[in-house]
Amino acid sequence: MVTVGPKVMADMSPIDSYPVRFVYNVVQIILCSYMCVEAFMIAYRNGYPVLPCAPFDAENPPAANLLWLFYVSKVLDFMDTIFIVLKKSWRQLSFLHVYHHCTIFLFYWLNVNAGYDGDVYLTIVLNGFIHTVMYTYYFVSMHTKDIWWKKYLTLMQMIQFVCMTTQALYLLTTGCTSYPPRIVVVYAGYILSLLFLFAQFYVNSYTKKPTAKNA
Amino acid sequence: MVTVGPKVMADMSPIDSYPVRFVYNVVQIILCSYMCVEAFMIAYRNGYPVLPCAPFDAENPPAANLLWLFYVSKVLDFMDTIFIVLKKSWRQLSFLHVYHHCTIFLFYWLNVNAGYDGDVYLTIVLNGFIHTVMYTYYFVSMHTKDIWWKKYLTLMQMIQFVCMTTQALYLLTTGCTSYPPRIVVVYAGYILSLLFLFAQFYVNSYTKKPTAKNA
Repeated sequence: MVTVGPKVMADMSPIDSYPVRFVYNVVQIILCSYMCVEAFMIAYRNGYPVLPCAPFDAENPPAANLLWLFYVSKVLDFMDTIFIVLKKSWRQLSFLHVYHHCTIFLFYWLNVNAGYDGDVYLTIVLNGFIHTVMYTYYFVSMHTKDIWWKKYLTLMQMIQFVCMTTQALYLLTTGCTSYPPRIVVVYAGYILSLLFLFAQFYVNSYTKKPTAKNA
Repeated sequence: MVTVGPKVMADMSPIDSYPVRFVYNVVQIILCSYMCVEAFMIAYRNGYPVLPCAPFDAENPPAANLLWLFYVSKVLDFMDTIFIVLKKSWRQLSFLHVYHHCTIFLFYWLNVNAGYDGDVYLTIVLNGFIHTVMYTYYFVSMHTKDIWWKKYLTLMQMIQFVCMTTQALYLLTTGCTSYPPRIVVVYAGYILSLLFLFAQFYVNSYTKKPTAKNA
């Protein structure tokens, strides 16, 4: 999509898929809200502890169905990339965007196959919430560009990654083996790479004073 | 609240509870989305038929917990009235608003106690969806007043009532007794009263040409 898309669009005028994006954002708000609350409810109903190291039930995993839905929803997220390509908004087709979308999909393929229960629920609570706020932001931005809380959205995304890293480090340092430890190691490294990229985006977007060049 | 509120506010300046409304609308979007999708999932998981007359399990009602949450969420909805009173926006404190909020609360008290399973799930799917869109509308309107789909929201609310009335009439005409028929009769009449009030609001708000008096 990222390599072929720009070539296909080269001779075409940009397409602003307003009606599709309108419905898409509302659907994403509803779906992400559901996944966030349902992940919390699964943890609550199954008596997961407040601190990490929840039980992992390989036979009847209570979180598996929801995790599968979360994985499939990452396919739906690729629509974001399609909208960018159609709009020929190449600046938005950043390394952060492409890296994030591709790797998260591969990572949850791994989770669906090997880490499909227990502590994985927290990533759905956190990411479901952030995605709800993010698609709400996209929806509001279809009405006005004047959104004072834009930078707080990026901040919330970074707080999300800090929570996820903390959970992973807790699992590793306490020697918890209910969730596959090798996945946790890869996960911690991966989330830190995202935290770094988002922090870089935050600094570039909100802290640098505009110069004549990029004003 | 409706009688005492205006008296309390009489000597006070209007209060615009922006920060509370900001969080409140996001919470409502997430909660209503969850209830909408979860009601659908309960119907799906328990093999409810496409046409009304779903089984009513009085012993282990799969929909009861969610219905209870839906009932409690109607208490949260009273915040809307509090915001109106604080803002001293008396025009919004209409008969439609007060009648709707009070009666829906009483009606779901009845449902929680006597109609707590089966076909009641559809009202949560429909109303959860409409409330998600409505609180999204409120949230967008905190950013801009220029929302082209405002009248379509009222239209969608009316379509919701038509679907609910159709379900009730189907249950009554096919002689379905799994859901308490006496509740269905009261429900059909109640929903028709709401449809009438919303239609009246639609005509007054969107079809009458502004005159010198109300322009």
